[in-house]
Amino acid sequence: MTRLLITGGAGFIGARLARTLLSRGTLAGREIEQIVLADQFAPPEDLLAERRVRALTGPLLEQCAGFATERFDGVFHLASAVSGECELDFDLGMRSNLDSTRALLDALRAAGNTPRLVFSSSVAVFGPDPGKPLADVVADDTLPAPQTSYGAQKLMCEHLITDMTRKGFIDGRAARLMTVTVRPGKPNAAASSFFSGVIREPLAGVQSVCPVDASVSHPVASPARTIEALIAVYEATREQLRGRLALNLPALNVTVQRMLDALEAVAGPKVRALVKFQRDERIAGIVANWPKGASAARANALGLTGDASFEDIVRQYIADCRARPDAHLTLKGLDS
Amino acid sequence: MTRLLITGGAGFIGARLARTLLSRGTLAGREIEQIVLADQFAPPEDLLAERRVRALTGPLLEQCAGFATERFDGVFHLASAVSGECELDFDLGMRSNLDSTRALLDALRAAGNTPRLVFSSSVAVFGPDPGKPLADVVADDTLPAPQTSYGAQKLMCEHLITDMTRKGFIDGRAARLMTVTVRPGKPNAAASSFFSGVIREPLAGVQSVCPVDASVSHPVASPARTIEALIAVYEATREQLRGRLALNLPALNVTVQRMLDALEAVAGPKVRALVKFQRDERIAGIVANWPKGASAARANALGLTGDASFEDIVRQYIADCRARPDAHLTLKGLDS
Repeated sequence: MTRLLITGGAGFIGARLARTLLSRGTLAGREIEQIVLADQFAPPEDLLAERRVRALTGPLLEQCAGFATERFDGVFHLASAVSGECELDFDLGMRSNLDSTRALLDALRAAGNTPRLVFSSSVAVFGPDPGKPLADVVADDTLPAPQTSYGAQKLMCEHLITDMTRKGFIDGRAARLMTVTVRPGKPNAAASSFFSGVIREPLAGVQSVCPVDASVSHPVASPARTIEALIAVYEATREQLRGRLALNLPALNVTVQRMLDALEAVAGPKVRALVKFQRDERIAGIVANWPKGASAARANALGLTGDASFEDIVRQYIADCRARPDAHLTLKGLDS
Repeated sequence: MTRLLITGGAGFIGARLARTLLSRGTLAGREIEQIVLADQFAPPEDLLAERRVRALTGPLLEQCAGFATERFDGVFHLASAVSGECELDFDLGMRSNLDSTRALLDALRAAGNTPRLVFSSSVAVFGPDPGKPLADVVADDTLPAPQTSYGAQKLMCEHLITDMTRKGFIDGRAARLMTVTVRPGKPNAAASSFFSGVIREPLAGVQSVCPVDASVSHPVASPARTIEALIAVYEATREQLRGRLALNLPALNVTVQRMLDALEAVAGPKVRALVKFQRDERIAGIVANWPKGASAARANALGLTGDASFEDIVRQYIADCRARPDAHLTLKGLDS
């Protein structure tokens, strides 16, 4: 039997991870007894209705002290302020990303049972050194150089988790998520929000504005591949991780142009035509410092691979929308 | 006119830096009006007697709030718990090294005048990945992998300083100090303490125990070269730093055997014979994960070089002892 905590458990990735885990029934060979979803918002109704789910709604920083006595067996730490809001409000980012993570780790250490922890780090730890171009493809062992406070905070957390694991306080690992697309719902404050918007909005029959050039290349991953990878990183033994506790998750390295070509191939030219280009200097400036692609040799060694094509990613989103009509995901663009 | 803060200003490096700055009279082309020495201990009497010196004695974490209204022009942030004590007491290290640095940076940001800051980082940010040997010589752009909490905390501070500089809150840079030898005074809790002890104690006519093999190689620097480098890194423009804000200081890469040969060459075989080898597994284990040598291309580009020989370093220590008889540094081994 195993008891799990998912921080950010009501968010898109958190809720989807919870559903996947509940449907599997086991994790690392042990039956899942309970999943606690900690989030500032309540989780979706289907999860609230699950007898193995307990929802804890409130600020993570205030919840952490209570976690010491919970003695979770494992934790997926996904809660985070996103890149755009951290760039606008430095203190918010430090509190949400660094202080909350530290409070969580302190609680897990106080629990005394060395729980396993997967931390959602980010490809945003990488960036160019001043005056130097960034490697076209960032690897597991590329020297990080965050260009946003979000990336810097994620990187500091990686180092704290590595050190607390070395000390035997936790059994941690940091999975560097690629930009997850297609996210459902509304645009958010993440600078990467448009990587979902330019697909999701046209499929819903709504115009979408792309704030960067079509030539922009970026490492992306579908929600399904991302969840699969988070679970595999959790289940990997320390030996299988081979060395460092932070690793890149597999990506599909793709240009905005290729994304839109895929959208047209799957959904037709009328849908594609709903995307307009209108450069946003703030977003474009942030994105210009992001990696154009990523490799993931160590995740590959765990058997993980990136999405085969962006067409697959578009089809996955359409299938997800059809499978969950309750989630208010519309495909009006496609149906018209 | 310029007003400076030195944290850890009563320590060996801090006090020596203060003396050097006072005797120069200027820093970055501006006359030094005042140096505030913040430390948990009172500074040496000669500094207390200096009209340009103000001593602030107490815990740094409590002093920081007051720094916001001081509006220092520049800061040398040297205060730190050392590697050995951070390894024994994780919370002490987090408080002394991470929390105190953050409180200091917050205060400097609140001051609103973008003060220049030199942070004393450490070669301890480097280490081998599990199962992989470390490069024999670590360079500015070697991927850090701290093997101690001390090194992890220094590395987190480097990233915080880089991000707060990018945001325009401070004008920071992080100088990775090599192991400074010969330190005067008593052995301390740093795992590197013996790198001074095996020279200092024999020169004082006292036996010294070396806890590692004579074949151990390590990057070291004399106090004089270290102070010179801290000042040069302070005075460098952002353009001269060329890129990253963290850089290695120049080192002399030397084995314990070479250190003892140099001691014998300068002070004779009787002094050398006072060093006994007695392996300490805890110390040897920490040191085994330290770099065997370091390069410093970016510091070299600022005109900085390492010490020419370990004989020079031994002679510098002897000259320092003779120049400051008030400092209770004995050379009884040499005089006998």
